[in-house]
Amino acid sequence: MQLHHVGIAVADLDQSIDLYRSMFGAELIHRATSAKDGLEAAFLKVGDAELELMAPLSEDTPVGKFIAKRGPGMHHVAFGVADIEQALTNARAEGLELIDAEPRMGMHGARIAFVHPKSVGGVLTELVET
Amino acid sequence: MQLHHVGIAVADLDQSIDLYRSMFGAELIHRATSAKDGLEAAFLKVGDAELELMAPLSEDTPVGKFIAKRGPGMHHVAFGVADIEQALTNARAEGLELIDAEPRMGMHGARIAFVHPKSVGGVLTELVET
Repeated sequence: MQLHHVGIAVADLDQSIDLYRSMFGAELIHRATSAKDGLEAAFLKVGDAELELMAPLSEDTPVGKFIAKRGPGMHHVAFGVADIEQALTNARAEGLELIDAEPRMGMHGARIAFVHPKSVGGVLTELVET
Repeated sequence: MQLHHVGIAVADLDQSIDLYRSMFGAELIHRATSAKDGLEAAFLKVGDAELELMAPLSEDTPVGKFIAKRGPGMHHVAFGVADIEQALTNARAEGLELIDAEPRMGMHGARIAFVHPKSVGGVLTELVET
């Protein structure tokens, strides 16, 4: 596996993109809005990994509620896996609680699934098929 | 720059190491205790990046207080830089507030400095000289 990306909840997407580009040399590779997930996301490349900056479309969305409760900041960690079906089978065998019982299509255009933070020491953990 | 590591505050270091090894194929590369920082840390390689798992030595330490307040979970994001003096000069020029005005020696055996989360959208951000 590899560390695929770190998801960060942000209040202002444009400002955050500018900061990571100017300060950390990140390169904007993709930007997309998901009405279903209630967020606009920007994917930035930093070396071999990515940052996913996520701005809520409204307060009444998962990321909007996250920011209201905890403030902007780190939201999830994603690991790249070669075979997401196998990874979910392994996760179940380890007794991890899955948020997504089956893979779903993520904003990357890749299949993803989330593991519940209570099974991973408080870290909301995403698996991304690469 | 590159995404160097993600720092995660954990309650039980051995259990967390086991989880990341078995679930995410992480490889333990270094383990160290810092009485000064009040923590025991384990560094695990996951692809090209690392996880730094940090367990507090007592409740009255920065990581102990973090866990008491927010629970275990994501703690910081670290970017690798070629020249940390230059990176700090750039950060100051961008108006970022630094926690470490000068680089200090980190547990990796590399020079590090932290940038205040309020300058980076709520993300405690570390620079590591690589």
